[in-house]
Amino acid sequence: MNTTSLQTFIEAYKKEIDQRLPLFIENLSCPGRLKEAMLYSLNAGGKRVRPLLMLATIATYRDIEETDYQVACALECIHTYSLIHDDLPAMDDDDFRRGKPTNHRVFGEAMAILAGDGLLTRAFELVSTLEGVSPEVKMTLVQQLAEASGAEGMVGGQVADLEGEKKELELKELEYIHHHKTGALLRYAIVAGAILAKATEEDIFHLRTFSEQLGLVFQIKDDILDVEGNPDQMGKAIGSDESKLKSTYPRLLSLEGAKEKLQIHADQALSSLHSIEKDVSLLAQFVEYITNRSH
Amino acid sequence: MNTTSLQTFIEAYKKEIDQRLPLFIENLSCPGRLKEAMLYSLNAGGKRVRPLLMLATIATYRDIEETDYQVACALECIHTYSLIHDDLPAMDDDDFRRGKPTNHRVFGEAMAILAGDGLLTRAFELVSTLEGVSPEVKMTLVQQLAEASGAEGMVGGQVADLEGEKKELELKELEYIHHHKTGALLRYAIVAGAILAKATEEDIFHLRTFSEQLGLVFQIKDDILDVEGNPDQMGKAIGSDESKLKSTYPRLLSLEGAKEKLQIHADQALSSLHSIEKDVSLLAQFVEYITNRSH
Repeated sequence: MNTTSLQTFIEAYKKEIDQRLPLFIENLSCPGRLKEAMLYSLNAGGKRVRPLLMLATIATYRDIEETDYQVACALECIHTYSLIHDDLPAMDDDDFRRGKPTNHRVFGEAMAILAGDGLLTRAFELVSTLEGVSPEVKMTLVQQLAEASGAEGMVGGQVADLEGEKKELELKELEYIHHHKTGALLRYAIVAGAILAKATEEDIFHLRTFSEQLGLVFQIKDDILDVEGNPDQMGKAIGSDESKLKSTYPRLLSLEGAKEKLQIHADQALSSLHSIEKDVSLLAQFVEYITNRSH
Repeated sequence: MNTTSLQTFIEAYKKEIDQRLPLFIENLSCPGRLKEAMLYSLNAGGKRVRPLLMLATIATYRDIEETDYQVACALECIHTYSLIHDDLPAMDDDDFRRGKPTNHRVFGEAMAILAGDGLLTRAFELVSTLEGVSPEVKMTLVQQLAEASGAEGMVGGQVADLEGEKKELELKELEYIHHHKTGALLRYAIVAGAILAKATEEDIFHLRTFSEQLGLVFQIKDDILDVEGNPDQMGKAIGSDESKLKSTYPRLLSLEGAKEKLQIHADQALSSLHSIEKDVSLLAQFVEYITNRSH
């Protein structure tokens, strides 16, 4: 692939993802209301950062194929399930997400829990039924997806986050939370993309480092936006972390310190791409995109 | 395997399952409280019907191997997650399960939701990391587990069950619920056991029929026990279905009619074993065990 502007890439492939995502749920034979609830949150917008990161990693090595979308959409199913469960009254108790009423506000708590369960399970089905991918590769993808999204990954991070709300955290604890809660799936997006694209072990090593740094950039930026973002663009109230006395990077490091840290990790992300002998401009632009995003 | 009494089999293998089940969670690197919550419900007792059915199916073909336990325990993880989520205030709002306080009563709702999410995800990890099983077989096992436990299986059945509580059901609707809510995992237990044991396609066909009939036996008996069971043995209040005006087999068919239906499906389960040229006595005894259980 020749150097493409990330903006062109995102516009083109976000559309492709948005088109395919509902199809993986619409063809299920299940109670209508359950399907509606799953589709409601899948179709509620969202930047599709994880699937786009996966596709951008693949595009670094070869043209994107139809099969790739199935893994990318599985990943978005997992991300969406985690948002539905996180928004529940027993968890973050959020009424709005991406500017729309949260799943349980529309479908009730029971259905929201089950829609999340259904999306999580569907993700594993999508990866295990990939066509044109060897069983060995599928197995690796399933295994790493389970690790990234389960108790040792995202679910563990969410528990640490809930427990952390009760106290002031140290930077190390805050990093544990983000490494697991949001980092694990971001890393998976990139590493799974590299596996699908048959990248060398060495490249996968560098891409893993890249994904770790990018995950930090993503989270620090999130915390900064919560302090100085535009509520209309964010689709949620600004200062909500502050009002909950939640530990954040600006709170621990000051806003200025958080911005410095953001830049350090952005630079480290970029330098981890140097050893890859491909056109990595798309991934490099992702660092800038996440660093400069306004919502 | 020679003819074994089912009682001997259950005593021996329930112990093996109970010993191994916590090990698959204890070795996880995750927040301690999350691990406690997952272990609490896994160790809360239970008859281990699903793993035992899987092992009994395997024992019909060959000796049980260490690997088999990993799939059997994955299945119990899924079953346990479904109980944790079903018991939540937003769902059945149960305070006791197997005579012990339900997960959310001990750990709070947020942790119960996440413990369920963690167990569900762990199940897929366990199946995808099986050793000594070909990637093709593992893939089939993951795929069928996702189908059995997701929107087209157990989750869909739970939604239909919740929706059915609001109205009087017809027999067909009641059967839809049970076919999905409890039937799907029971079928998986037997079919996955047959796949692991390398049974022929023809045998798998007959075992699938067997599992469908056995699932009906299981559910009709459950409904009958709710009318005439012993609350101490059941670990929950008797008549709880009745008090919720929930549709049940005795309610739709009368207690006598439900008992007749139980017998019909038990006979059909047994006759589906006739075409299998193995010693099927263990599976046959399972029919009797489920028909005559007192809790």
